[in-house]
Amino acid sequence: MKLYTYFRSSAAYRVRIALNLKGIKHTLTPVNLLKGDHCGSSYKGINPQGLLPTLELSNGKKISQSTAILEYLENEYPAIPLLPKDSFEAATIRSWSNIIACDIHPLDNLKVLKYLVNELNVDAEDKMTWYHHWIIEGFTALETQLLATPYCFGDRVTLADVYLIPMVYNALRFNLSMEKFPKILAIYETCNTLDAFDRAKPENQDDCLIA
Amino acid sequence: MKLYTYFRSSAAYRVRIALNLKGIKHTLTPVNLLKGDHCGSSYKGINPQGLLPTLELSNGKKISQSTAILEYLENEYPAIPLLPKDSFEAATIRSWSNIIACDIHPLDNLKVLKYLVNELNVDAEDKMTWYHHWIIEGFTALETQLLATPYCFGDRVTLADVYLIPMVYNALRFNLSMEKFPKILAIYETCNTLDAFDRAKPENQDDCLIA
Repeated sequence: MKLYTYFRSSAAYRVRIALNLKGIKHTLTPVNLLKGDHCGSSYKGINPQGLLPTLELSNGKKISQSTAILEYLENEYPAIPLLPKDSFEAATIRSWSNIIACDIHPLDNLKVLKYLVNELNVDAEDKMTWYHHWIIEGFTALETQLLATPYCFGDRVTLADVYLIPMVYNALRFNLSMEKFPKILAIYETCNTLDAFDRAKPENQDDCLIA
Repeated sequence: MKLYTYFRSSAAYRVRIALNLKGIKHTLTPVNLLKGDHCGSSYKGINPQGLLPTLELSNGKKISQSTAILEYLENEYPAIPLLPKDSFEAATIRSWSNIIACDIHPLDNLKVLKYLVNELNVDAEDKMTWYHHWIIEGFTALETQLLATPYCFGDRVTLADVYLIPMVYNALRFNLSMEKFPKILAIYETCNTLDAFDRAKPENQDDCLIA
């Protein structure tokens, strides 16, 4: 299968981690968000919304939206599970992960930040305060609910870690102090020692522009 | 089981519909968002984030975040399914639904609108433009991908309809023109003829303040 990705897209980063964790053979096809390639007719033919990521299966069928992709991978590749079998335990992990997927990430998306600046004339400082605000609010809820180590829900990596690590990566990139979130930071550091997380990192992508 | 709800919370509205569709016996406990009851210590003991809805199971265990609740109900009450068994078909429905859950609803949430007004001094007109902007962008993507009738994905109600109807309800409440979204509007009208959707409507809730 093939993943359409951008090194800094945190939704794509989630899926890269999951593909690595599950040991699913795949190729990565970069789509340059900065150059606007996601808005071109070529990528819009693959994903009409022009959003990343898109997973293309070996039969050519496509799935967009990272949460839908992750649930699909969990169903189709259960050998290395990222959710427990018990429905309530899985619900607890999904609920925790949804704080990132629904309460933090959508507000700090590139297109939202652009709207703030271009349509509402929000200045750089207020934009950064907005960015930090939703992360701090969400991380506060997440940190409170973390009861296990070394990963979010104990001694096995779950979907919760898959959602968390790209969000922390972004928080650190935008200089958020992690002082009040020691558990989250410890999990971030532990996960990044794993090969599956390391290979998925933005700076380890072929399309990375930082290097 | 018990659902903590607020008549106008569209995330709670989703879960009300699903509980009705699946015929799951439950009670509704209103939490008044307008009066700030969700921020009080009583509800924060139930849901530390202070968000709605929360589902309390008969054993007292609790699940928050509507997407996590809906997945839990789907796993535990499969007799009336809201997702097809085929993983790819389910992924297509989840992907479509996530446009609402991740790309529209989080941006038009009450707490976000409050931030725009209180922290960024956005005026009433610009706030409404913001509100409409994310719905129009999302509905445009959703409308394009609708290929079936009378429901979002054919002749059976799915999770897609469960997500869609509360979003359309909000759009109409804030006077969005549905002219460019005839398929979405037709589905909305069809779903509302069903008892499960009708009983879940804001105006049919005991805590409704409109009447």
